[in-house]
This record gives sequence, C-alpha cells and structure tokens, in this order.
Amino acid sequence: MPLRPEVTDLLDRIRLFLREEVHPLEPDFLRGDLAAVAPALAGKRQRAQALGLWTPHLPPAYGGLGLSLWEFGHVSELLGRSPLGHYLCNCQAPDIGNMELLLHFGSEEQKERWLLPLAAGEIRSCFSMTEPENPGSNPVMMSTTALPEGEDYVINGRKWFTTAADGAAFAIVMAITNPDADRYARASQIIVPTDTPGFRLAANTPVMGHVGSGFATHGEVEYVDCRVPQSYRIGAEGAGFALAQERLGPGRIHHCMRWIGICERAFEMMCARALRRELAPGKPLAIQGIVQAWIAESRAEINAARLLVLDAAAKIDAQGAYAARTDISLIKFYVAGVLQNVLDRAIQAHGGLGVTDYTPLAYWYRHERAARIYDGPDEVHKIAVARRILREGAW
Amino acid sequence: MPLRPEVTDLLDRIRLFLREEVHPLEPDFLRGDLAAVAPALAGKRQRAQALGLWTPHLPPAYGGLGLSLWEFGHVSELLGRSPLGHYLCNCQAPDIGNMELLLHFGSEEQKERWLLPLAAGEIRSCFSMTEPENPGSNPVMMSTTALPEGEDYVINGRKWFTTAADGAAFAIVMAITNPDADRYARASQIIVPTDTPGFRLAANTPVMGHVGSGFATHGEVEYVDCRVPQSYRIGAEGAGFALAQERLGPGRIHHCMRWIGICERAFEMMCARALRRELAPGKPLAIQGIVQAWIAESRAEINAARLLVLDAAAKIDAQGAYAARTDISLIKFYVAGVLQNVLDRAIQAHGGLGVTDYTPLAYWYRHERAARIYDGPDEVHKIAVARRILREGAW
Amino acid sequence: MPLRPEVTDLLDRIRLFLREEVHPLEPDFLRGDLAAVAPALAGKRQRAQALGLWTPHLPPAYGGLGLSLWEFGHVSELLGRSPLGHYLCNCQAPDIGNMELLLHFGSEEQKERWLLPLAAGEIRSCFSMTEPENPGSNPVMMSTTALPEGEDYVINGRKWFTTAADGAAFAIVMAITNPDADRYARASQIIVPTDTPGFRLAANTPVMGHVGSGFATHGEVEYVDCRVPQSYRIGAEGAGFALAQERLGPGRIHHCMRWIGICERAFEMMCARALRRELAPGKPLAIQGIVQAWIAESRAEINAARLLVLDAAAKIDAQGAYAARTDISLIKFYVAGVLQNVLDRAIQAHGGLGVTDYTPLAYWYRHERAARIYDGPDEVHKIAVARRILREGAW
Amino acid sequence: MPLRPEVTDLLDRIRLFLREEVHPLEPDFLRGDLAAVAPALAGKRQRAQALGLWTPHLPPAYGGLGLSLWEFGHVSELLGRSPLGHYLCNCQAPDIGNMELLLHFGSEEQKERWLLPLAAGEIRSCFSMTEPENPGSNPVMMSTTALPEGEDYVINGRKWFTTAADGAAFAIVMAITNPDADRYARASQIIVPTDTPGFRLAANTPVMGHVGSGFATHGEVEYVDCRVPQSYRIGAEGAGFALAQERLGPGRIHHCMRWIGICERAFEMMCARALRRELAPGKPLAIQGIVQAWIAESRAEINAARLLVLDAAAKIDAQGAYAARTDISLIKFYVAGVLQNVLDRAIQAHGGLGVTDYTPLAYWYRHERAARIYDGPDEVHKIAVARRILREGAW
Repeated sequence: MPLRPEVTDLLDRIRLFLREEVHPLEPDFLRGDLAAVAPALAGKRQRAQALGLWTPHLPPAYGGLGLSLWEFGHVSELLGRSPLGHYLCNCQAPDIGNMELLLHFGSEEQKERWLLPLAAGEIRSCFSMTEPENPGSNPVMMSTTALPEGEDYVINGRKWFTTAADGAAFAIVMAITNPDADRYARASQIIVPTDTPGFRLAANTPVMGHVGSGFATHGEVEYVDCRVPQSYRIGAEGAGFALAQERLGPGRIHHCMRWIGICERAFEMMCARALRRELAPGKPLAIQGIVQAWIAESRAEINAARLLVLDAAAKIDAQGAYAARTDISLIKFYVAGVLQNVLDRAIQAHGGLGVTDYTPLAYWYRHERAARIYDGPDEVHKIAVARRILREGAW
Repeated sequence: MPLRPEVTDLLDRIRLFLREEVHPLEPDFLRGDLAAVAPALAGKRQRAQALGLWTPHLPPAYGGLGLSLWEFGHVSELLGRSPLGHYLCNCQAPDIGNMELLLHFGSEEQKERWLLPLAAGEIRSCFSMTEPENPGSNPVMMSTTALPEGEDYVINGRKWFTTAADGAAFAIVMAITNPDADRYARASQIIVPTDTPGFRLAANTPVMGHVGSGFATHGEVEYVDCRVPQSYRIGAEGAGFALAQERLGPGRIHHCMRWIGICERAFEMMCARALRRELAPGKPLAIQGIVQAWIAESRAEINAARLLVLDAAAKIDAQGAYAARTDISLIKFYVAGVLQNVLDRAIQAHGGLGVTDYTPLAYWYRHERAARIYDGPDEVHKIAVARRILREGAW
Repeated sequence: MPLRPEVTDLLDRIRLFLREEVHPLEPDFLRGDLAAVAPALAGKRQRAQALGLWTPHLPPAYGGLGLSLWEFGHVSELLGRSPLGHYLCNCQAPDIGNMELLLHFGSEEQKERWLLPLAAGEIRSCFSMTEPENPGSNPVMMSTTALPEGEDYVINGRKWFTTAADGAAFAIVMAITNPDADRYARASQIIVPTDTPGFRLAANTPVMGHVGSGFATHGEVEYVDCRVPQSYRIGAEGAGFALAQERLGPGRIHHCMRWIGICERAFEMMCARALRRELAPGKPLAIQGIVQAWIAESRAEINAARLLVLDAAAKIDAQGAYAARTDISLIKFYVAGVLQNVLDRAIQAHGGLGVTDYTPLAYWYRHERAARIYDGPDEVHKIAVARRILREGAW
Repeated sequence: MPLRPEVTDLLDRIRLFLREEVHPLEPDFLRGDLAAVAPALAGKRQRAQALGLWTPHLPPAYGGLGLSLWEFGHVSELLGRSPLGHYLCNCQAPDIGNMELLLHFGSEEQKERWLLPLAAGEIRSCFSMTEPENPGSNPVMMSTTALPEGEDYVINGRKWFTTAADGAAFAIVMAITNPDADRYARASQIIVPTDTPGFRLAANTPVMGHVGSGFATHGEVEYVDCRVPQSYRIGAEGAGFALAQERLGPGRIHHCMRWIGICERAFEMMCARALRRELAPGKPLAIQGIVQAWIAESRAEINAARLLVLDAAAKIDAQGAYAARTDISLIKFYVAGVLQNVLDRAIQAHGGLGVTDYTPLAYWYRHERAARIYDGPDEVHKIAVARRILREGAW
C-alpha cells in the first residue's frame, strides 16, 4: 500500500525539521535539565506549527493533518528518532491520548474547553489511571472512587505514574463510579482540572535517577474529597475501561512506531560507529563478525517489527481497535523486545561512549526500559493473547 | 494487497486437499520408509493434477497456475503444513528450482527435453553444487571442473548434498569452466543426464540418522571424466554464479514460506495439545503461564516472519531478485530462527510425545535443523547483509 | 577438592579406552543399526571388565569401583564423550538406576536374583513409569494399578518410554497399590520379569525417526492381569514415589555429567573444525568473530555447568538426595539447556557435515532433545524449584 | 573448601552491618545526590573501621584483614548487596585496585606516601587509562605519552572514565614511555598528584543521566605538559600493561563477586515482590508460571556464576593471575550477562515500581549496564579467550 503523496511530502519535511532544527537541540537536552532547554523547545514548537507539522494525529478541524492511523504511524516513527520529536509536534503522550479520547468521546463542551487549547499547545494534560498498590491489569483492583453526590463526583484515591501532571491544566482520572457493577463496568473517566481543591501533586516520582520537571515527570497524585461536576465525565458512566481500551489501541501504535524510530536512529548510530571506530589503524569495528551479526539481526528485527505494527494499524483503520486487539497486544511486547535488543547492541557497539549522555542511547536505555511495563507488561499481554487464541481458535 | 479471487479459491482447494487426502498419509510416511508409501504418493500426485493444484509455480504454458512469486508464497505456506505437500503438487526442491532455472534461462531445446517432463512429473532432477571440502559461500573455492574438449565439457569433481540424486534423470552441475576468469565468472551450470558415463552416485549421505531413499536422499556424486555436449550448459559460459543467485532468490521465498507453513501447523498442534493435555483433572496445560508465553511469542514471531517474507516476495516480483538481495538474506536467517523456536516450543509442549514419530514435529526438528545451513548458513547471510548495509548506507 | 589418586588413574584409563577402543566403533554405530555392531560391543564390554572399568558406580562387593557420587560424576562425564561409553562400562540408563535402586532398597533375595546378573552384564532391565495419557509430573495421575490378590499383585495398565524393554529380563514397574492413600503414597515399585504372562511389549515407539532395536528402544508395554508375587515389590508398599525420587536424584547427576561429556566432545569438534575448515585459502573458520564467540560462550557455560553439577553431587554425598533436591532440579534444566546450546553451535560450525551421521553431533542432537523432557520437563523443575524457594525462604 | 571460622564470623558481622546500618541509608542515596548523604557516609565509614570491617582486602600491616582473594570474594559478594557497601568498607573501585597495585609493586616510599593514607581512608585516588579516541583493548592505540625529560616525565594526553578523579589526591596514569618498544612494553604506570600543574579535570562525564559528584563521577582529564619525577613510576619502565593485567585479574574477581551480591539482593527482592504483590485478592504474582521460571532460572544462573568466580579466585590464589587469565575472561562476560538477566527479571517483576528509585534496582540497571563494557567489553574477552583456546589446545 503506497503512501499518499501529501504524506510522503510531510515525511520529507519532518526529516528536514529533525535534521536541521531538532537534532541540534539534543545535546543540551540530554545533558541538562529540561528547564534549561525549555525556551528553545517553545520556539521549536512554534516552528513546527509554522511548518505544518503540528498535531498531525488530529483532523484538520482541530488544526491537525487528517491522517489515518497507518499514516500517522509513519509520522510517529520519524518523530521517534529524537527524544524531542513528538513533543515538538504536540503529539506526545499522554496529551495525544487525551486529545484522541476527547475527540472521539468528549462532549462538545469538553472539546471546546479542553481539546482546543490542548490541540493549540496552550495547555498540557495528564492521565491518572495507575495506582501504586494495585496492578493495572486487573480492573477489579482499583481503589480510587468517584462517588456521586448531587450533581458532582467526589473523588478519593491515590494514583502514580500520572505522567506530566506537573504543570498540567487537567487530569483525566479513572475512578470507580459504580462499585457494584460488572467488573469491567465499574469505572469512569473524569476530567479533573488540576486547580480543583483536593487534587494534590504529592510528588514527582524519581524514575531512573531523576524526578524530572515539567512534562518530563511522573506524578504521584492524591485525590482527597476532590469534587467535580458529573458533566466532566467522558462518555457514559461505567465506560471507563472500554474507553481505556479505545485509548490504548491507537496509543500502542503510536508507541510502537516511536520505538521503531528509536531503533532506526540507534541502528544508524551503530553503523556509523562501526565504520568510524578503529580497533587498530585501518581496522574499523565494522570488520568484526560479532558486530556484523548485530547489524544484520537488528535490520531483520526492525523490518519485521515495522511491518507488524503497520499491519495492525491498517487493521485498526479498517476494522477498529477491538477487532485488532490481539494484533495490538502482539506488537506491544514484540516491538518492546526489539527495541531493547537494538538499543543494547547499539550501546555495546559504542563501548564507554554508549553509557555517557553524549548520545541519546543511554537516555533511551533508561527511559524505555519501561516500554516493557507501561500500558501492560509483556507478561500480561502474552497471557491475554494466549487465552484469546486458545478460546477463539478451532484447535 | 488482497489476493486475487482465483488464488483465494486455489488456497481453499489446497486446504481441502491437505485435510482430506494428504494429512491421512502422514503417519505412514513418518513411521515407515518412503518405499512403503510410494504408491500412495503417486496416486495423490495424480489427484493433485486432477484438482488443478499441479506445478503451481509454472506458467500455464507449462501446465502451471501462472502465479506471481508473492502469490506462490501463499501456496507454499499452505503446502508446507505437510511434509508431503510440495512433493504432491510437484513443486518440491530441488525440482522447483531446476524448473525455474530452465524456464528462465534454458534453451528451447533444453526446455523441451527436460522442463516439460519435469513439469509433468515424469522425471526427477537434482542440483549438484555443494562440495564436501569447500565452503559453498566462497565461489573461488570450487574444485569441480568442466573443461571444454571439442564440443563437449569433461567434468571432474565430487559433490555432496546433491539432494534427490537417487533416481533423478539429470543433474544440473555447477563447475568451473573458466578458471582464469574473475572470481564470480568462473563457473557454469551444466545439465548432466545421470546415465552419462562418469556420473556416479557414490553414496546417499546419512543425514540425521537416515540415508533415505528416492527423492528423500542427499547424494554424494563423483564426476569422473564425465562428458556432455557444451549445448547442455544453461545460459552463458561463466554465468553459473549469477544463475545460482537468480535460482536462490525465489528459492528462499519458497523455503521461507514453507517454514511458515510448518510453524503454523506446529502452532496449531501446540494449541491443541495445551487444551487437551491435563496436568491434573480439569487443569489443562493451557493454564500454565509458561505455555501461554510460548503461544503468544510464537504467534508474534510467525506473523512478523510472514509479513517479512511476503514483503520480500513482492519486491522480487516488482524489482527482481537482485534488488531484493538484502531482504532475501534477512528472511533466510530470520525465518529459519523463528522456525527453530516454534518447533522447539511445540515439541516441549508435547513432552515425550514430541520426540516420537507420532507427530510430524520430530521429523521437522531433524530435517529442518539444516534450514539454518543450506542455501547459505545464517552467519554467511548475516555477514553479507551487514557488509552491504555498511557499504551502501550513508552512515 | 582434589580427586583421589586411584580415581585420577581410573579416569586416565577410561580416556585411553575411549580413544583406542571405543571411538573407532562410533562410525559404524552412527551409520548402521545396532545389530550390526552388537558383536563388537559385546567384545568391548568384556574389555571394559578386563580393564577394571566395569560398573564403576557399584561397590566392590558387586564388582564395582566403590566411587562416591561426586567421583562417579567425573567418570560419567568421560564416558559421555562417546554414545557408547556408558553401555560399554555397564552403567547405562536405565540399568544403572535399577542397580542403584536394588542396591539400596532391594531385599537380599532381590539382589541375588536381579542385581548380581545385572552387575555382571548378563541381563538387561527396564523401568516402566511413564504413561502415555498422564503427565509424569503429577503422582495422582497414574492409571496403572497393582492390586493385591492373595500373595500377589495383579498389574493392569499401559506404559511407554519403558526404555530398553526390548530384550530386558525384567521391568521395574511403578503402579498404584494404595489408591486411597495420600497422594504421594499410592504407588509402589514392583519387579516384573518380562516373561510373566500379561507383560506385553506392544511396540517399540518410533522416536526421532527410529524404532531402534535392543537396548536402543523405547518400549510401549501393556500390563494385562499381569501377576507377580508381592515379594517382588521393592521397599515398602506405597513407597514408590519416594523411591523414584531417590532413584532420580543420583540419576540426574549421571545424566548431567554425561551431557557435560557430550558438550566437551562437541566443543573439541567445534574447535578442530574451526581450525581446519577454510573459508578461503589460509583463512580458517576460526578467524570468524561469531565462531570465536561460540567457543568462548560454550567454554564458560560448560565450566559453569560442571561446577554446578559436581557441587550438587558433593551435596548428595554429604547430605543425601532429599537435602539436595533443589540443586538437582536446577542442574536438570540448566545443564540440559547448556547441552542444547553447545550442540547447536557445534553443528552450525560444521555446516552441512553437522547434520550428517559422519560425526556424532546429529545423533546427540536428535537423541538429547529429550534431555529437556525426560526425568521431568524443564518447566516442571522450574515451577517446583520456584515454589520451594518461595515457600522456604525468609522473603 | 570451607571458609575459616574467622571469615565466617566476618561475614556475619558484615551482614549485620548492612542490615542495621547501611540499608537504611539507601533510600536517601538513591533519591538524592551524593552530597546530601556524604556526612552519613563518613560516619558509617568510621563505624566500619570500629567494627573491624575496614579495607578487608589488605594485609594486617596496612590495617586490613589478611584475606585470600577467594575469601575476599565472599566479602565482596556481601558488600555488593548495597550500592554503598564497598565504599563504606574502603574497598571500592578504583581505590582498591590502586591499593593492590601499590602494595605489590609500589616502592616503599610510594607505599608510605600514598598507600597508607588510602588505606586509612584519608585520601581518594583514581586510575587514568581509557582514552576517548582509542579502544582500551589495543595496547598499541594509546595516545597519552610520558616522555622522560631529565629526572621527570612530561605527560601529555587526554583520558576519560578516570573514575572518581573529582576530589582524588592522585591519579595513576597509564602513558607511553617507550614508543619504540615492543607493543606490550610501551607504557608505564605513573603516579600523578592531582595538584600537579598540567593535570586538569576537564569535565565529569555525564553517564546515564548524571555527572555525579565526588567519588561518584567519571572524570575526563587533560594532561598538558604535566611533569612528575620518574620516581613516581610504579614498577619498571614499560611494565604498564603487565601491571594492568595484574591489577585487572583480582579486580575482575572483586567486580564479579560484587555483581553476584547485586544478583542475590535483586533475587530476594523479586521473591518478596512475587509473594506480596497481588494480581487479584489472594492471588500473588508468585503463582504465575512465568515468574516462577524467572526465579528458577535466576537461582541456577547465580549459583553457577558464583561457583565459576570462586573457582577462578582459588586458581589466582594458587597459581597467580596469569595462569588464570582464561578463567578471568570467562567470568568477566559470563557474570556480567547473568547480572543483566537477573536485574532485568527483578525489574519486570516489580512493574512500574521497578523503574522508580524507590528500590536500588533502577540504580543498578543504569550503572551496571557498563559491566559488560568496562575492564574489557564482552566481545574483547570472548575473542581473546577463543584465540587462546584455539592456540593452546590440542585440537
């Protein structure tokens, strides 16, 4: 299936933007803290708007580029080549997921109030689902409640890994609204402006050595008698898990394609290193059979991973996320595994340089270890896939 | 890219043929020697002709089905589900490679004399390239010579892994005709009828516990002053390696899709076993997390492998084997690895039954260990791919 | 811990015996059927007796060498270097296990009648535990019964993988004698002479392409109203599983050390091949980094495996098999994994030659796939070990 | 080989010290910067002295405990259980290596001036060998020179990964003193006080997201006409590489045993997590087969790794580092691999918590990625081992 010419052109423009304007920012980003590069990032976000690269995942009515998921997958891969790519084009998690959720399931009022400024990059948001004491994989084990009181919900509970809560204008909170309902119908998703009394950012969780700042944080949030109108609920009451699945389906395509972008960048760096690093005068690393094997294996794995993800994206475009749920689980753990393999080889090929922050490899190594955990650990996906296959097949 | 309706229909008919007529023959094939099942196989080959499943890889003019390589890939996968599939439809290696070679590069006379009866299944053939003392990966290290003498070639040398030599009507021999030429231009491919004086089947090499019989053999062949007319040469003098590459490109698609067929059958058997084998009353193997992981990982790997092979096949269809040579090397080692993983898991899930000949798993385990060796060992492909990537990329 | 001088000397004599007298028999053994080499094997068994290498695992009173398990481990490793080693010294499975069982738990009469001729090599025996329809790992799921009737047991059931039943003088059968007892106290081990009416060798199961002959078989045995005196029971009634554990503990040391012997032989072959096989004139396989990595990784894994097994053997010697049961489970799956890795690399280094029967590699590849299955599949051991660790540790 | 009672007692006291005094400091260390915990660390170092745990690797004459390398290995494993263990007992790299070097090869004057205060913990030191532009594995490719001028050496060059240079009193620098000598005889090791003019700490290299502070840094050091007396050279001129090998042999035992300590701690955390984390009420993670497999595999790998390292340590004690150089290379890559496997599984078992800094797992994950790189990357060791095996064996 060939790409539409306008998408091919878009990809070319993204490549140029990355090469000319984004990659030069990376060294400061990798070595400094986010605050130091914040002004430069703000400027580049304006550039991305000017260049027509902004919110590529949204329809034109919201300032976006009207791409199919399969097309956006190609964009996400390219942007993934830089740790800054998605943010500069305003399609970074968790905002992208919140935008998609509001787009598809938000009321007109919610879209007006929250989606438009998000799409414009005027505010940020966060998604508050995971709880420290409960496994995300079991919908019955959620402790946060949003109990109806008059026209409001009163929310109590504790969440963590509420990524980018620090500085966000609102959170979308998953909470139990219907404790007596069927296990998958107990929770709802509710918009909570972060200035609501009772919303408290207890801490930015230190992750891989950093508490971070701004959007590069993982908030631990307390909800104490936090009261919002019921009209802040997204979709039907009890639809929380169904919406989460709808959110996560495309979200996993975004992540997987982003990981493939990381793989491609790491692969390029490994090849360049292999050619330039000399073991002895005139004898580059590239002549080593072990390194050649890494290159060949990485090439095969990345190619296979991309085809698998794009195939799942096309299936979602054609049949919806529910029909593609096995494919989505497969790519989630498969591509996360490829990512880890490729990064590991690229680091090893760089020797000591590979663990420094003079390349983005160590950044990805640290931050993408979580790829095998967030949005469902590998094992949860494997078990879910196997059960479905065993149940649905004619064995 | 959707399949043409006639191909979809063909695949349905192959599925039916396999289920109704081929799978029932397998137990005798797996437990007995080939001679015992030979009459039944002959009958089923006639059935395949009657059902329109014969020589699917050839154009209609030669009795075939006129499929693209991408389409034939789908056929090869299905046939690969049985150890007998390709043979019953007359598209088994090495005959299929020889047919394709004669089709594309043979003279009219050669096609008349050798391709037609091969396509009709009246004769068998073999391909005589590998030498016991020389690595197949180095074209300079070939010892067999075919020296011109008058209008003839006089061939001397020793080959092994001349698969199916026992009972073949002719061999296609790779031999050095131009010892002083450039390294890739020294060899030619020459048809040698097996009743030519000086052609001697020295032995059927015992492989994985069996010398085999008939087409299920690997011949060690001596050529002693073996004289054939120069008109028996296929293509230009010195074109041997170029033709071998042309032969091997599609050949690797055939093999890889066959391996995927094996994977799918093994996967089905693993799922069926997991559901039916009880570890305790009411507790099937399927509830074990380790087995669930095998199922999920196998599903991901097989899906990825299929997409990768079909992508390479489409590229060969569109741009030729030369343009796709990196893709062809990648699938060769990648899919062979998936095959080994999936077979290993399926055997392990079967416990003791897995090593018996009551299922085809042990047969494939033995015979397909060579998948990582024949047509170029994994390592040769990896090194070749890496060198090409490093040479051709803009790193 | 240094070996006693007499053991060092014994090992030297075994090395000599293998090199001078056993390895020369291997080509015929690997290529032919067992019957063809039977006379030569019989002669070499006499030689082993003459050379003082006979039944090394038994105490001198039974014609053995009075070794500790740790010492015998060293012997078993050396003998494992040849597929014929253990058999020629009369310490092959399953006879060795039966000898040990009779030695430690048999009555004087049983020792007289069965152990002495076994130790002398006058008869062979088999062990009949595994059932086709039941997982060996669950003691509750055994269908074969031995119900008391007067002074006899009447045995009914079906067993398979009764290795070497063909030609054996007696079987030791595991059967339920006390169906209402506690789950681990239901079965007993009973000697059944194979000429007892009701003992029927239904088939030699085809395994990895062969039904085999003589001791190289895996019998499927039917017990139909097969009546033996209760005095043929070994040990107490209901002690079957306890005895099986006692039998399997040292048995796993035997196997693991045998596998290490196989690994060492394969390692040597890989090194020799790497040095002698030229990829180009003057460029042996040994210069390839990938092959170097195989050699280094194999060396590390084999060394680690040996230390782990010898450590477990010393623990059994000092504290008994029960105290070492976690160690025994660990080596079972760990060393089987190392064996598979090393064999795989050695085959790959041999290219086409590796899958032929011109080396023992393909034999071991076929026959030792079962190493990860027999005496408890990897997964059963892993689960058992983990449960015990989690239960017994102070976490 | 049993431990001496005084060593057993020492190990018990270390266990107590870790549990009571060291582990409680870890949370602050993991979340804060080093400066914040520096006073507490200083206090605990005094406690270690008071408790008789100080400089356990040194002979009593230097305030140490007079342990063999095999005995110290046991100590290093225990200390490795905490990121702070070695530092608190004054046996942290690189000081420990420098102390050993001075002890064995330093002049009396050097010992007096540098070893005594190091052993007392009054100063710190660093080791300046690796160069950014040159692979450490090739002795010919070292650019830093120390050219004799009068009674001095004048040192010029650039080093990095001069660990703990920040705040060190002196560096031991590897530099070319004899450019025309045989390749392994060109370099010498020279003590350079860090206040020498021309010694400049250009930067602390950012590694895995941090530049660090104090001893937790990796200095990039410029030597510009840096002049020291020739009497500051350790050992003979040109003996630099020989001394480096002597230094690295025991050093790899230290590291490997430390890694095993990390593995044991991670293993315990994995078991505790498996038992306490519930997937559903009453259903802990521990019931998952995949997690059980991780526990069993980790147990086997750690046990094997420990035996392999202790075996190498005993060999160094008995025969010296040169005789054990293959063993040392084997453990270097083997144990680094086990470490990575075990940490990966422990993190995965912890889910989101595993990537936070609320446990030491993420710290080790980041910092010990370099274990496969420093002191020789895996690949360099594998190639060196394979070449030596191929050269020295009788294949």
